[in-house]
Amino acid sequence: MLQSKLFTKTRKEAPKDEVAENAKLLIRAGFVHKEMAGVYSYLPLGLRVLRNLENIIREEMNKLGGQELFLSALQGKEIWEKTNRWDDRVVDNWFKTKLKNNAELSLAFTHEEPIARIMSQFVSSYKDLPFSAYQFQVKFRNEARAKSGIMRAREFLMKDLYSFSRNENEHDSFYKKAKEAYERIFASVGLADVTYITFASGGSFSKYSHEFQTICETGEDIIYVSEDKKIAVNKEVYDDKTLKDLGLKKEELKEKKAIEVGNIFSLGTKFSDAFNLYYADENGEKHPVIMGCYGLGVSRLMGAIVEIFSDEKGIIWPESVAPFRVHLLRLGESSEIASHADSVYAGLQKAGIEVLYDERKDASAGEKFADSDLIGIPWRVVVSAKTSASGKLELKNRKTGEVKMINEEDLLNHVK
Amino acid sequence: MLQSKLFTKTRKEAPKDEVAENAKLLIRAGFVHKEMAGVYSYLPLGLRVLRNLENIIREEMNKLGGQELFLSALQGKEIWEKTNRWDDRVVDNWFKTKLKNNAELSLAFTHEEPIARIMSQFVSSYKDLPFSAYQFQVKFRNEARAKSGIMRAREFLMKDLYSFSRNENEHDSFYKKAKEAYERIFASVGLADVTYITFASGGSFSKYSHEFQTICETGEDIIYVSEDKKIAVNKEVYDDKTLKDLGLKKEELKEKKAIEVGNIFSLGTKFSDAFNLYYADENGEKHPVIMGCYGLGVSRLMGAIVEIFSDEKGIIWPESVAPFRVHLLRLGESSEIASHADSVYAGLQKAGIEVLYDERKDASAGEKFADSDLIGIPWRVVVSAKTSASGKLELKNRKTGEVKMINEEDLLNHVK
Repeated sequence: MLQSKLFTKTRKEAPKDEVAENAKLLIRAGFVHKEMAGVYSYLPLGLRVLRNLENIIREEMNKLGGQELFLSALQGKEIWEKTNRWDDRVVDNWFKTKLKNNAELSLAFTHEEPIARIMSQFVSSYKDLPFSAYQFQVKFRNEARAKSGIMRAREFLMKDLYSFSRNENEHDSFYKKAKEAYERIFASVGLADVTYITFASGGSFSKYSHEFQTICETGEDIIYVSEDKKIAVNKEVYDDKTLKDLGLKKEELKEKKAIEVGNIFSLGTKFSDAFNLYYADENGEKHPVIMGCYGLGVSRLMGAIVEIFSDEKGIIWPESVAPFRVHLLRLGESSEIASHADSVYAGLQKAGIEVLYDERKDASAGEKFADSDLIGIPWRVVVSAKTSASGKLELKNRKTGEVKMINEEDLLNHVK
Repeated sequence: MLQSKLFTKTRKEAPKDEVAENAKLLIRAGFVHKEMAGVYSYLPLGLRVLRNLENIIREEMNKLGGQELFLSALQGKEIWEKTNRWDDRVVDNWFKTKLKNNAELSLAFTHEEPIARIMSQFVSSYKDLPFSAYQFQVKFRNEARAKSGIMRAREFLMKDLYSFSRNENEHDSFYKKAKEAYERIFASVGLADVTYITFASGGSFSKYSHEFQTICETGEDIIYVSEDKKIAVNKEVYDDKTLKDLGLKKEELKEKKAIEVGNIFSLGTKFSDAFNLYYADENGEKHPVIMGCYGLGVSRLMGAIVEIFSDEKGIIWPESVAPFRVHLLRLGESSEIASHADSVYAGLQKAGIEVLYDERKDASAGEKFADSDLIGIPWRVVVSAKTSASGKLELKNRKTGEVKMINEEDLLNHVK
């Protein structure tokens, strides 16, 4: 895409009321717009990152056999009353609204209730199980504090997967596969080293749930990490009993701040019982379906990536999620430089590489370099009087900072 | 996809409270789930149709140079006060909610205000214009009545495009191109013949706006159609003055019921003025940006398609939006039939054709045929004892009803 056509521009300063580093960088670089505390709109660059994340996650969900659907945000009071979650004293972050006839509605902060009700229409026999379904849908959570940018927003994009199994064995086997899928997702966005599977409170139906916690100075959670065993314990269950359960010793654990980027839960039969989600087995006996839920905050993950992969100059996107793979900078306006840069652009596009081409005439070289560092596209390619004279291109890796002059025919080998 | 794995099932009856034909069929066939009046969730088959529509529309928006973004649903009161739209007496279909600190928020029913505010940060010079931006985003409208299924929902998916121009000429030229893009969209979903560009009320800044109205017995609008000239007039502006403006005579117009599937509006400077969306021209003089907005209800369009393309047996999806291209039915459980059907399935998949493969063992031939007609996939292919014996396949076109026996090697030529 031609940068002169992109409507966003970078800015030197973030809004004064923005305290989170991720949002500051994303706003300055033109990825998001802050509507109010905890509510952000996604501008073209930001949406490209979000879609890349979605695609990485969707691929893993499909490998699990998950069927994609899209549930409504508006939900009726009656389904939340069935599980005793309507009361504001039980769920403290509701957004609620009303129909014209004064019937109360909620903006879903999660979707266990609606999906259990839907599935009760389709499941009757053991032959209908097991299966799983997922969506990418906005969740609404009325956070009292919203100071972590897109890492803890009041409206945010989440992937939520739900599994439906006949028995504990079947559930455990899916749960294990989902855990592995999550590990692959965090690996493919470059967070494997700093993301820990973390034992947390399990709710009513299992001893522990599993969180995926990414070590991050600005994270709101405290976890205790065993670097050797590559597991962690959330502060909420950090006690002698848990340590004994997990065979961990206090001495081997380090206290860290972290951001919860995913969590997976065994739900047991809580929702199945509430919504008559039962199946008949081979002998005609009825049993409640065993459910699991598997959340992953897509926009939150984007925020965590920015917190972790950035420096004083700007964002450093991992290649798998970057809005473009190459940032091509044209420095100088001579027809020779322009046609050289144009041909490099055409060549990259032809090879299917996504390029942001900074061919702006009213920006200085210094501005273009600064914008490029701020926006954080993995590979920067410069065409200038110097490079055109030498018949080479200047290639810089945003992550390592390494700069080299390369032959044009080698460009694809480097950036592919 | 294997139909035995699809968690949805068809049902004989729609919910008793559902009065709209589109929702009845979509619920019975397992495309959507009704959460409450006017609020629907999209199940796997329904989401596939929605995504196909999105892709058709996105392609046209990108051709117009539109940049995709994604604005938040939650919006602060202050921006709607700037244009005098916060008051419930002005906008009668608000959903509103509150933050913990009691600050009032709205669920956006449209996005002119937020997008004008965003653009005021990025536009300062004539060099920044013209451009356009669009999104696929859910809109929330608190309809007093919601009796038209997904054709008029309280929560629905909309594509909204906004254009930003320096002057009326530039605006008119974009507006014309957008109109043509809309015509191509309706043509590619098979609605060209029954969709009329319709003159409607223009608001404060232009004499008329343009609606795209699809003739449909269950539509909520009344329009007056000139079949010869392929234009129509909305009842709201149907008077002698309008007829004179458009050079139409009463005698040539027919009254029809219709559903508004799109509308395009010149907004003039209403929102630019409210949000200081100004640019400086070559001489440094400031001018407000000329805006246009171009809406298209994606889920509404899906509903209209079902209303128009269906018969007493079920839905008849146009090929461009169908959830699958081929519905492959396996009738009979002999290993010969099974392996024959499996190989047809593999062959279609290899050719990149999307296939729903009904290999269910517990459904009769009659049930499979009825389900296939109800779900409405364009091509039905049957593998049975009869076809296997003859070495042929039975191919049925859902739209024409034509059935023929074809050689297997000709299958791709027919369904591609």
